[in-house]
Amino acid sequence: MTQRPATLRFIDNRLSLLDQRRLPQQIEYLDIDSIETAYDAIQSLAVRGAPAIGVAAAYALAQSMLATTAPTATAFSEQLASNGARLKSARPTAVNLAWAIDRLINCDAHQPTDSVTQRANALVSEAKRIHREDVQICEGIGRHGAPLIQPGSRVLTHCNAGALAVTGIGTATAPLYARHSQGIQFKVFADETRPLYQGARLTAWELDQAGIDVTVLCDNTAASLMDRGNIDLVIVGTDRVTANGDVVNKIGTLNVAILCQHFGIPMYVACPSSTYDAQTPTGSDVKIEQRDEVEVLGDHAAHVRAVNPAFDVTPAHMITGIITEHGISTNPRALARTIKTASDLQ
Amino acid sequence: MTQRPATLRFIDNRLSLLDQRRLPQQIEYLDIDSIETAYDAIQSLAVRGAPAIGVAAAYALAQSMLATTAPTATAFSEQLASNGARLKSARPTAVNLAWAIDRLINCDAHQPTDSVTQRANALVSEAKRIHREDVQICEGIGRHGAPLIQPGSRVLTHCNAGALAVTGIGTATAPLYARHSQGIQFKVFADETRPLYQGARLTAWELDQAGIDVTVLCDNTAASLMDRGNIDLVIVGTDRVTANGDVVNKIGTLNVAILCQHFGIPMYVACPSSTYDAQTPTGSDVKIEQRDEVEVLGDHAAHVRAVNPAFDVTPAHMITGIITEHGISTNPRALARTIKTASDLQ
Repeated sequence: MTQRPATLRFIDNRLSLLDQRRLPQQIEYLDIDSIETAYDAIQSLAVRGAPAIGVAAAYALAQSMLATTAPTATAFSEQLASNGARLKSARPTAVNLAWAIDRLINCDAHQPTDSVTQRANALVSEAKRIHREDVQICEGIGRHGAPLIQPGSRVLTHCNAGALAVTGIGTATAPLYARHSQGIQFKVFADETRPLYQGARLTAWELDQAGIDVTVLCDNTAASLMDRGNIDLVIVGTDRVTANGDVVNKIGTLNVAILCQHFGIPMYVACPSSTYDAQTPTGSDVKIEQRDEVEVLGDHAAHVRAVNPAFDVTPAHMITGIITEHGISTNPRALARTIKTASDLQ
Repeated sequence: MTQRPATLRFIDNRLSLLDQRRLPQQIEYLDIDSIETAYDAIQSLAVRGAPAIGVAAAYALAQSMLATTAPTATAFSEQLASNGARLKSARPTAVNLAWAIDRLINCDAHQPTDSVTQRANALVSEAKRIHREDVQICEGIGRHGAPLIQPGSRVLTHCNAGALAVTGIGTATAPLYARHSQGIQFKVFADETRPLYQGARLTAWELDQAGIDVTVLCDNTAASLMDRGNIDLVIVGTDRVTANGDVVNKIGTLNVAILCQHFGIPMYVACPSSTYDAQTPTGSDVKIEQRDEVEVLGDHAAHVRAVNPAFDVTPAHMITGIITEHGISTNPRALARTIKTASDLQ
């Protein structure tokens, strides 16, 4: 079994990031040697996927404080706040980015020592903890989701809710990696996912790197494969599960869900339980990001207009089950309650 | 109202073809001055779409015989047969190509005169007749289909069953052009139609050229638009309607049909009645062309495999109605019988 290159590395207190802008043509790591290089990497999508951004930012921030010349604990904390604020501004709407930075600042605020070296080392430890938790959540999703995949199963996925978006084995891909590591043979069909081809560029690449049998299809071809009995199961990720269990995910997910309902194919959603958004009642309350039409039109049709919503909303009742690190719920509304309770208890 | 460039021109007995390989970036006409240039144009897809190929071949063949040096009627007919055979071999599976050439040969066989000039002129007349019939069939489809489009309607189409594929106003596009010419305002949404982007490159271009309001979308986005109530009607073309009314059309058509059923949106198919194939019982009896995976993978994912079926099959019961030059049937099986009878009578 071949090994997929890691989304990021932190070796000898130095962060480097797999440059996702160049995939799959080039496998290159960006060396992060300052807050500014980290800022550029996050802003330009060299690292993408909410969890991966959070972990990368935590490491970059901790690393910057190892190199600090701050003479006192107070000066140290001030520089930490300043560096953190700079990083947050790289993608101001990325929730995980702000969350990871605040967690490091909070960690520093609770340090009992005035030693600048010890405080910097404590930040490195906290960044590693954030990283480890991310890996463990993915492993939990993989453990719970793997039994859904039978020997010979044909699994369709959409977009990249893969290892590249996190630092572990991904969310929608976690059950695939987990099952593959058990020596079970199965096939994955990756929707290419227009307009940015995350399925063809990223999902197909990372699964292939790991030695998993993967085939790309145009997004309009799933119906034909399902009609011929060639898909047994769908697993996708999600950016947000609303209070009622509606799933907000990459444009095209609703399309796949409707096909699943038509053909009687199970449709699972995999995500960390932190994806549950109790504050938003339903999917229709979510404002959908409309992206630049040039992503759709390219050189093919530069003369006309296009619509380019980044996400769509799949109603809760169309989802067979949601796979989180806590287990699988076949009732999204019940799961939403479970997740909420679990979060409340933490 | 702007005018769409014609698919082909036959002026002063000289054929020129709109070069569809260069659309929409360049609007260029290829001058056809010999059987060999016609052969190259057909083989390399400078002209595409079964009806357009048939008309282009008829003109090219007639034109070649105007220039003949054949001294006798017998020599004339021999050269006609030879030139026709050469053209047929450009795309041996194109039914309309062989049909148009055979029609010219048959026309020549029934000429009462031995005058080579008169026989050549008769071929030109027959080619013009084939052209005129093609235009009239499209106009018939437009006339019958136009009333489906209400002021303000939002019409989705898939692939290019447009004017570029024929010499008239297209098949799926015929009701759009017809309604537009009545001064009715409406909106068209064109599925980009991966992997070859016929929707974004050709349909969007030709409708925009005609002054029709057109917006491109990725194939995975139709569900989201329908969910928000933004699509009133779907009209697509078809390559073949089987004896039971199943519709064989560009990959992704089945996907659209399932969405229409889910959202309760009418789904129409527009085609010449000659598209009815009484010899093939059902859609599952049609062998689906599997095309090169490089069309799907491009530069994005050259390392993995892809599936690339050119067509899919939509079951008869999912079609609201079929629009032909004879009218609209809301019962495809009944229509199939009607068309068969109409053909038998001709």
